Amino acid sequence: MFRTEFPIEWGDCDEAGIVFYPNYFYWLDCTFQRLIRARGLSLRELRRRFGVVTPIIDAGAKFRAPARYDDTLIVEAFVDTWETKRFRVAYKLSIGERAVAEGFEVRAWAQIDKDGVLSGHPIDTTFKDLMK
Amino acid sequence: MFRTEFPIEWGDCDEAGIVFYPNYFYWLDCTFQRLIRARGLSLRELRRRFGVVTPIIDAGAKFRAPARYDDTLIVEAFVDTWETKRFRVAYKLSIGERAVAEGFEVRAWAQIDKDGVLSGHPIDTTFKDLMK
Amino acid sequence: MFRTEFPIEWGDCDEAGIVFYPNYFYWLDCTFQRLIRARGLSLRELRRRFGVVTPIIDAGAKFRAPARYDDTLIVEAFVDTWETKRFRVAYKLSIGERAVAEGFEVRAWAQIDKDGVLSGHPIDTTFKDLMK
Amino acid sequence: MFRTEFPIEWGDCDEAGIVFYPNYFYWLDCTFQRLIRARGLSLRELRRRFGVVTPIIDAGAKFRAPARYDDTLIVEAFVDTWETKRFRVAYKLSIGERAVAEGFEVRAWAQIDKDGVLSGHPIDTTFKDLMK
Repeated sequence: MFRTEFPIEWGDCDEAGIVFYPNYFYWLDCTFQRLIRARGLSLRELRRRFGVVTPIIDAGAKFRAPARYDDTLIVEAFVDTWETKRFRVAYKLSIGERAVAEGFEVRAWAQIDKDGVLSGHPIDTTFKDLMK
Repeated sequence: MFRTEFPIEWGDCDEAGIVFYPNYFYWLDCTFQRLIRARGLSLRELRRRFGVVTPIIDAGAKFRAPARYDDTLIVEAFVDTWETKRFRVAYKLSIGERAVAEGFEVRAWAQIDKDGVLSGHPIDTTFKDLMK
Repeated sequence: MFRTEFPIEWGDCDEAGIVFYPNYFYWLDCTFQRLIRARGLSLRELRRRFGVVTPIIDAGAKFRAPARYDDTLIVEAFVDTWETKRFRVAYKLSIGERAVAEGFEVRAWAQIDKDGVLSGHPIDTTFKDLMK
Repeated sequence: MFRTEFPIEWGDCDEAGIVFYPNYFYWLDCTFQRLIRARGLSLRELRRRFGVVTPIIDAGAKFRAPARYDDTLIVEAFVDTWETKRFRVAYKLSIGERAVAEGFEVRAWAQIDKDGVLSGHPIDTTFKDLMK
């Protein structure tokens, strides 16, 4: 299970003094980046090495408890579903022992042709192996 | 059906030249604010008039096609489900005739007691009538 | 004088209930984009037509009064200084009659060579004429 | 000299593949928060202990070189000017040995009366001592 942390900043909170919820999706995306980085990859590397991008096709989160300025958000992540042309990353967000949210992202494995058009392709097994 | 628009700005897009997806949730939230404003309400007014806040308990979006700088994002919204203590807002995002995404937010009707503790309460019928 | 407006959203404000100040710079950038768009240009068009980008080399703002959720921010902008290889855009931000801030951006006129390296070049007179 | 770091995330960069400049001001603000936290304070603590807030009255930055996704931004900060009712924080931003930007924030020492009205007051010497 990959694990990373984000300090919750003043500017991440709204007038109610709690995290403005779209920011959680920013942290999901950051966590995905850190997850692939931990495996020696990056979005640039995916493009260079496999000729692909990984566009989001579905994302969601259920919120259990609010988080606030000065809290440290812990995000755990792993790929919980592999389909032929897409994969799903599951995220668990917490502050200390307190569950804050669960989220997910479904990402496609998409090749870009010379005209910039994207098309889904079977996920490269090297990538799958690296992510396991 | 409530309808609003957002110009997609340079800073809303990532290195791939498409909208960075957490921004879509920012626009869902903005649309909710504009929707309640169109009915003479606001988050401040909800608090003053009903003593409640409407925290997000679930949110998600499915993405159909990318959107880019200089596009005008059209967002349509309506409350599609009323439960006793929560309601669900459905969003349809498009650029011209092209569908970009569908999203939703589930919001609770939560009273704040004098110690700042939130607890779910049955949704006020005045609010329901205004939102229909 | 170019003039545009931004509704101040819930998510633009911090726990103190006022606009989180980095967002003002987002609006300065948006205003620049709208200003050049009003002259038939865009960052993409500048790149296509003149082979240039306009990186920020200096930016600042003085804040006079806070702005809040539900306020409509008015931004006025014009190029107030032309140097050989850079120009300065001045911004005046207000809410109704109340001055909120004054800001500026100094942008370079930079050509990108085939290796992606930027170098300052004299500003094209066509651009200058369009912006006057 | 206080020193902190921020990983530059995919979502912090624009279509040109470089940091979208308003994000630098977000990091200046975050650095200020971390700076006061390192001295046992926070915005909430300032309010509780001194009855003050520290609104921004002037902010700016000069940009030397671009920063990109996967770079680690180093920010150094210190209070370089104390006036009676305001102070100036200087920031130096770099990536490894490469200077990226210099910035500053001028913040007021403002008391909030019972009607929420702010007024400048002489900076508490305890705060000054802690920040030195």
